[in-house]
Amino acid sequence: MNNFSSAKDSGNEMYQLARDLFPICRSITGDGVRQTLAALGAQLPGLRLHEVPSGTQVFDWTVPEEWNIRSARLLGPDGQVVVDFADHNLHVVGYSEPVDIELSLDELQEHLYSLPDQPDAIPYVTSYYKRRWGFCLTHRQREGLKPGQYRAVIDSSLEAGSLTYAELLLPGESKQEILVSSYVCHPSMGNNELSGPVVTAWLAKWLTQTKRRYSYRIVFIPETIGSITYLSKNLAAMKPVTIAGFNVSCVGDDRCYSFLPTRNGKTVADKAAKHVLKHIAPDFISYTYLDRGSDERQYNAPGVDLPVCSVMRSKYGQYPEYHTSLDNLDLISPTGLAGALNALQLCLTCLENNETLKVTVLCEPQLGKRGLYPTISSRGSAAAVANMMHMLAYCDGSRDLLSIAETIDCPMWELLDAVKNLKQHGLLEVVG
Amino acid sequence: MNNFSSAKDSGNEMYQLARDLFPICRSITGDGVRQTLAALGAQLPGLRLHEVPSGTQVFDWTVPEEWNIRSARLLGPDGQVVVDFADHNLHVVGYSEPVDIELSLDELQEHLYSLPDQPDAIPYVTSYYKRRWGFCLTHRQREGLKPGQYRAVIDSSLEAGSLTYAELLLPGESKQEILVSSYVCHPSMGNNELSGPVVTAWLAKWLTQTKRRYSYRIVFIPETIGSITYLSKNLAAMKPVTIAGFNVSCVGDDRCYSFLPTRNGKTVADKAAKHVLKHIAPDFISYTYLDRGSDERQYNAPGVDLPVCSVMRSKYGQYPEYHTSLDNLDLISPTGLAGALNALQLCLTCLENNETLKVTVLCEPQLGKRGLYPTISSRGSAAAVANMMHMLAYCDGSRDLLSIAETIDCPMWELLDAVKNLKQHGLLEVVG
Amino acid sequence: MNNFSSAKDSGNEMYQLARDLFPICRSITGDGVRQTLAALGAQLPGLRLHEVPSGTQVFDWTVPEEWNIRSARLLGPDGQVVVDFADHNLHVVGYSEPVDIELSLDELQEHLYSLPDQPDAIPYVTSYYKRRWGFCLTHRQREGLKPGQYRAVIDSSLEAGSLTYAELLLPGESKQEILVSSYVCHPSMGNNELSGPVVTAWLAKWLTQTKRRYSYRIVFIPETIGSITYLSKNLAAMKPVTIAGFNVSCVGDDRCYSFLPTRNGKTVADKAAKHVLKHIAPDFISYTYLDRGSDERQYNAPGVDLPVCSVMRSKYGQYPEYHTSLDNLDLISPTGLAGALNALQLCLTCLENNETLKVTVLCEPQLGKRGLYPTISSRGSAAAVANMMHMLAYCDGSRDLLSIAETIDCPMWELLDAVKNLKQHGLLEVVG
Repeated sequence: MNNFSSAKDSGNEMYQLARDLFPICRSITGDGVRQTLAALGAQLPGLRLHEVPSGTQVFDWTVPEEWNIRSARLLGPDGQVVVDFADHNLHVVGYSEPVDIELSLDELQEHLYSLPDQPDAIPYVTSYYKRRWGFCLTHRQREGLKPGQYRAVIDSSLEAGSLTYAELLLPGESKQEILVSSYVCHPSMGNNELSGPVVTAWLAKWLTQTKRRYSYRIVFIPETIGSITYLSKNLAAMKPVTIAGFNVSCVGDDRCYSFLPTRNGKTVADKAAKHVLKHIAPDFISYTYLDRGSDERQYNAPGVDLPVCSVMRSKYGQYPEYHTSLDNLDLISPTGLAGALNALQLCLTCLENNETLKVTVLCEPQLGKRGLYPTISSRGSAAAVANMMHMLAYCDGSRDLLSIAETIDCPMWELLDAVKNLKQHGLLEVVG
Repeated sequence: MNNFSSAKDSGNEMYQLARDLFPICRSITGDGVRQTLAALGAQLPGLRLHEVPSGTQVFDWTVPEEWNIRSARLLGPDGQVVVDFADHNLHVVGYSEPVDIELSLDELQEHLYSLPDQPDAIPYVTSYYKRRWGFCLTHRQREGLKPGQYRAVIDSSLEAGSLTYAELLLPGESKQEILVSSYVCHPSMGNNELSGPVVTAWLAKWLTQTKRRYSYRIVFIPETIGSITYLSKNLAAMKPVTIAGFNVSCVGDDRCYSFLPTRNGKTVADKAAKHVLKHIAPDFISYTYLDRGSDERQYNAPGVDLPVCSVMRSKYGQYPEYHTSLDNLDLISPTGLAGALNALQLCLTCLENNETLKVTVLCEPQLGKRGLYPTISSRGSAAAVANMMHMLAYCDGSRDLLSIAETIDCPMWELLDAVKNLKQHGLLEVVG
Repeated sequence: MNNFSSAKDSGNEMYQLARDLFPICRSITGDGVRQTLAALGAQLPGLRLHEVPSGTQVFDWTVPEEWNIRSARLLGPDGQVVVDFADHNLHVVGYSEPVDIELSLDELQEHLYSLPDQPDAIPYVTSYYKRRWGFCLTHRQREGLKPGQYRAVIDSSLEAGSLTYAELLLPGESKQEILVSSYVCHPSMGNNELSGPVVTAWLAKWLTQTKRRYSYRIVFIPETIGSITYLSKNLAAMKPVTIAGFNVSCVGDDRCYSFLPTRNGKTVADKAAKHVLKHIAPDFISYTYLDRGSDERQYNAPGVDLPVCSVMRSKYGQYPEYHTSLDNLDLISPTGLAGALNALQLCLTCLENNETLKVTVLCEPQLGKRGLYPTISSRGSAAAVANMMHMLAYCDGSRDLLSIAETIDCPMWELLDAVKNLKQHGLLEVVG
């Protein structure tokens, strides 16, 4: 499980899929989600779709009615089209109820959403659990609206239907599992979110081609209600076996790397993620659990307690384009996506190879006679083998390899060849 | 127990009582202590006085003879009065034995005490356990003394009597106790000490008017010998039930806030005090137990181990006027006293409301349907409810509310309304 | 065990012994080791020599053939002597096999060792476990070598023999042991290494004259193979009783103090060493276990786990003269050696006197009536007894004196008189 050299090459393919999926109007339910999951399924044989009927009780929540929208327009006093859903699906407040109404500009204002401090951005607004309708537009356009009678037409439906999600279960040598979760409910935006599902898909593709120690549970769900729904059906099975998890979101731009810990903060998932980021992006931004905002809120909730953290590029809420039409395909890039994929592959590589090792002889082994150590000793001659010697010095059966790599300040993946060598020479054995 | 808005209003009343008590000559025994306790008793119905006879063995110590003083004068070569106890009771060394003697200036010098580096201050000196007599005066005056014969007259008595202290026991819902201790042995000084007893009295008055979860033990004692005496009689009863304690001293000036921890340093008393000071006075001075110097020395002694810390304004030994006549009524102020009272009330508020809470549903509760969360989601909309959501995210039945408030960096008292609300909605329950 | 005032006086004697031993050609086996141990034995009655035959299996290693060398010369094209072992024993690669061969300068080059960046230093090179021969010389000399035929003559022997080490066992009141280990395998160098054996010898002499709570195991061994050999014979006996250990190396120069911890990092040996260095050399250099390089590698190896740390002057590998002819008698000094001896004596003094103490009375004892505390109280009067009072405040039967000394930031050895005093007054007792 250490061939991740092709990660960067995958950047272009991931970006192409993001481009294909961009126009679809996704929400927490509806045909946009199904279309998106179908496209992911084309990449991931074995991806299984599930439909959970509206009205189903999921913990403290209820699966809402299914929302679909065909068209929406706001017409001005002269009959001209002011905003049109066909131009950008952010123009309509998510979960807007159907409407066909005439009203004055004043009356209209309380159904309009814009951002005074970002006058050229269309904001992303939703109202899932209270019936509303509304249009989102740039503040510049809003300020130019003339007094008079407007007509608002939204051809949507809110009806009994279902919430749709998909999962891919990849068995490994062990029944212990790693969870990878991303979400499919955001309409036309790039970093938050199309980057999450496409990087998750490529991570899954890589996993399917790899010898796996752990089993993997990969889920594509709508945010919040989706993870709650998923957990209400699967928590009992997941809780005893989940050793780590990653919520994959905001993994598309190329400005920085970000880390958001589990609530516990000290799980092996946290350790692996921080170890990877420290070595590949030393200036990564380390957030606290107080900065959470995606599905890790559900996975880490009291009583759920799954060790799910997030390895991100620019984090939701922390970049100016967040939740607006400016978070578009220009914001994300093949290198941004590939960088995130690589980081996540390294996290899984660390977890897959994390073992508690014990040296089999007392005192230092004589590596020289095995060709693993220089036979002539002069000043500094041991530099090249220092990491191997450091590792051996800590393989006492009480620490895992990840902790040792941290202690000796060496990327864990750079120790894997030495581990293999020393195991072959019978000098290292796995404990427990 | 959250009505502490009147704390500041109490400043003037407290200052008035300090003014009334200021002229009394207090010591570790004697009628000055009794007069002081009587005045406190007028404020605190239920305050009970105790007399412990001279000679009583209290742990490693013995209650000394009772000291009373009626007058004292030092007369100069020309018969003029050099210093007079009637002018300031600091003029006589505490526990001075009676004397009426003529002696030369040279002979007199070893009975005089002054401060060369504070030439206008009368120092506060005592000799409780070795018989001495002496006069304290300003260094300026001392330097002006002319050679010749002096007459020293001290009309005091050292006789079998008793040590006097007072206690007020306020029962609460629980038999678990909080100790509040202050001392009444300092003669005419302000911050150290009349501030302690008056603030303690007002804290006690506030407690009597409040629903109490915990029981309170409020004691007014002479320092050192008093706390040792009190513990020798009450430790067995206190030790199993005391969850926190506060030694109230140096709570009168308005220059800063100070904290001195318990010996353990990590008790709930320490946590509450530091939490309060961090939020109301972020630049408070944090001392260590090595800086101790008041009755917390006895309460925290090995084998006693009561979790008693100190929340102060300017700490004893750390301000220039300390233990001199300059520590007078000008040094303390109504706002200084009121600030300390408020800090202590907040400490007790934190302790009274500190519970281990557990959210009753899995995943985040749906607060929107209960009117506790906005129903429309756009950028940053959750800011107003962030603290409530943070708190819920940590209510996992393993942390107390004080720890959670620390983690989420929010004053604990600002969470109490949310706790009440969520309990009423059945979303939070108390654990253990 | 607190008479270490003569430590500094020992500096000259130690330096003289180093001067005497300097010319001997030591290696990991051979007569040079025996000569060195004989000289140490003359200082240390009771020092016992051991011989372990070549071929003996010691953990993962095998005791090598014994090496002895009588003479060695490199002759130039004109027959002149280019380098001569008689001039400096670093001129020959340690464990060089016998040779008498003519070869061109080109062929010779691969048998020559020099340091381009230190052109006037002869490097120290060995090849214990692979047969080689070679000459070491200054780079300046090497660059002046003329083309032509050279003759290399090394009159050495590599034959079945034995590895020699010595040990001195000093019984104490307890069977618990402290290990002191140094090595005797370095040829003519000063800081690394003749300083180690001579300081160890003087430490041992001091211990023989001292009342000992602990038993001491003092060993003089060749590095690496020697400690491995010693452990293979003695680990079973040492492991249950060894409470601390010191690897004594690089203790001769006067430039700084250095500390290298045990692998565990938190043993009482580490605590004592850091406590001592903090107080006697606050700017000491604190290395980590990743900087290890001497026999602490074997003592701290997984499964061996002896708590052995190092208190040094300039650490091996960290000073420019290291492992060259520049590490000579000018680099070390009487004051350098005496400083190290003093530091190690203080470490042992701390360990010998480290007890868990408990005050025998509740609350503060009344020290005044025992003449241990001033009887008059005024501002700051308690300063002189502050450390005693601090110590008493922490003697709760749960902390050892070393931890208390750390907490109160006072050299532990400055508390020993107070401990003795308070024990005599029955106010302190030893716990457990």
